[in-house]
Amino acid sequence: MTDFTSETDARGRVADVRTIACIGAGTIGAGWAAYFLAKGYYVRVWDPAPGAAPKVRQLIDAAWPALTQLGLAEGASPDNFTVHTDIAEAVAGVGFVQESAPEVLELKQNLLADIDAATADGVVIASSTSGYSMTDMATRATTPSRLVVGHPFNPPYLIPLVEVVGGEATSAAAVQWAADFYEYIGKSVIKMDREVPGFIANRLQEALWREALHMIDNGEATVEQIDRSITDGPGLRWPIHGPMTTFHLAGGQGGMRHMLEHFGPSLKSPWTRLEAPELTDELREAVIAGVDAAEERSVNDLIIERDAAIIAVRNVIDEIKGRRA
Amino acid sequence: MTDFTSETDARGRVADVRTIACIGAGTIGAGWAAYFLAKGYYVRVWDPAPGAAPKVRQLIDAAWPALTQLGLAEGASPDNFTVHTDIAEAVAGVGFVQESAPEVLELKQNLLADIDAATADGVVIASSTSGYSMTDMATRATTPSRLVVGHPFNPPYLIPLVEVVGGEATSAAAVQWAADFYEYIGKSVIKMDREVPGFIANRLQEALWREALHMIDNGEATVEQIDRSITDGPGLRWPIHGPMTTFHLAGGQGGMRHMLEHFGPSLKSPWTRLEAPELTDELREAVIAGVDAAEERSVNDLIIERDAAIIAVRNVIDEIKGRRA
Repeated sequence: MTDFTSETDARGRVADVRTIACIGAGTIGAGWAAYFLAKGYYVRVWDPAPGAAPKVRQLIDAAWPALTQLGLAEGASPDNFTVHTDIAEAVAGVGFVQESAPEVLELKQNLLADIDAATADGVVIASSTSGYSMTDMATRATTPSRLVVGHPFNPPYLIPLVEVVGGEATSAAAVQWAADFYEYIGKSVIKMDREVPGFIANRLQEALWREALHMIDNGEATVEQIDRSITDGPGLRWPIHGPMTTFHLAGGQGGMRHMLEHFGPSLKSPWTRLEAPELTDELREAVIAGVDAAEERSVNDLIIERDAAIIAVRNVIDEIKGRRA
Repeated sequence: MTDFTSETDARGRVADVRTIACIGAGTIGAGWAAYFLAKGYYVRVWDPAPGAAPKVRQLIDAAWPALTQLGLAEGASPDNFTVHTDIAEAVAGVGFVQESAPEVLELKQNLLADIDAATADGVVIASSTSGYSMTDMATRATTPSRLVVGHPFNPPYLIPLVEVVGGEATSAAAVQWAADFYEYIGKSVIKMDREVPGFIANRLQEALWREALHMIDNGEATVEQIDRSITDGPGLRWPIHGPMTTFHLAGGQGGMRHMLEHFGPSLKSPWTRLEAPELTDELREAVIAGVDAAEERSVNDLIIERDAAIIAVRNVIDEIKGRRA
């Protein structure tokens, strides 16, 4: 972990942050606030909407039992927040800013400029945007070097993943500081080296979602069938092994290499509306090398882990579904 | 459940099946055999490969602890199987046939014709194919009316989903019988009314997989990042709520309608290489109506269920990953 970075872009150690500003208090913004509170921080919420304060209170209270179950930091309290309608007031004295305003580009551009103007030098400002690039959002800010994307998943207080990426004008130090900070507070961080529309997880789930919409549009499957095809199928494997490791195991003892040899031709099949890339030797070797780099355990060990996970996941899900009945 | 169906296509009640033939004993075929054994059936395995018998023995033994944990039927034994190299011998007296040979169309066509010729009238024959249509596979069979696709997911002894669909010459009675039988033995069945390449779950996971291959091909993400973006992100939600219900909740209290209004424009964004369908009024209303039909509970109840599931899944996965260390 990098503790000291560039003076201008990202000042101070991640461990020294005490107070965080949450700009925008919808589902995502208030979810972030709840998470930061559970980690023992003081939170200053900015939201100009009438009735924002009781709504934030309600969202934090709704999240707190879950956060308590996962374990609170010492001194964490659901009451350690204030709600503001003035941005300068909200960011006063904070060590980090998380912006979670509605997904409207111009609104984000103006808001990030306002936040930047009001926030002390060297404090990193992250945006929860689910799709805009920081290059596009930072156009009106005076100090774009400290603006980064810190993209969470709903609900941000339960899903560990945060995708961190900068824009063209973002300094590497600010990106590194944000990645370090999220990791420090227990997040699973993917630091991207370049801007890709939709980042990584959204591109993947968006491909799936678009295929699902096509199927509904064409009367090929119902909403219920689409959901159950995932919950009772591949969805049971994905919490333990992502799509790459899953297909590594589909190759049996031969792993990904065998899988690509055996099922590679199916990339030409009309199994989805998305055309696959040409399975060149380079791509094949890159995928195999990537699996080898990501996973040193044997196929047998992975199968044992997968089976244990599927059983455990099925058992807890069955229990939760049973409560529904 | 339909117990009595057409005399010629699907004779007998699903509850009367005692013995099942598993044709082909690779990962999928032997996985099916293990599942059928755990449900108390006698299994007759056909596999012409040298050394098939000890391999089947080994695969069943590897699956048995998991099956024991999930609960065995009365009288279930991992020893209630025989291995044959003659098809007529393997299908003698069975009440159901599950074919799981390698994914080579001509091989499947010939094998299904041979199975059909050797199997008693009225016994339904299912293929585990992950991608061929039964219309294409049944071309050489004398009685294509009893040939259905029964597509499982790896490992078939742990993943509940089975997609059931017929070919052009398959009788509705045989499709219904297969769906009833799989349900009877505890599977989560999706009965499709028409042939769609890749069925449902494979189309969805294949869209995701192809997008992932493109990202690797273009240096946009590593194998490790792709996997973790799912395991630590959307993958934690998918065992409880499929992609449609997940996005229903992304709309907050407004549900899917609000989600499509708010995020609908992002379908035009280059967030994946798959073009989305036009979000017409008809499609929008079909998606909303589909969610309403699939899910009568309130958004609040679904959020409570989702949060409980994510916590429970995270806890069991953390425990399993902890064992690794």
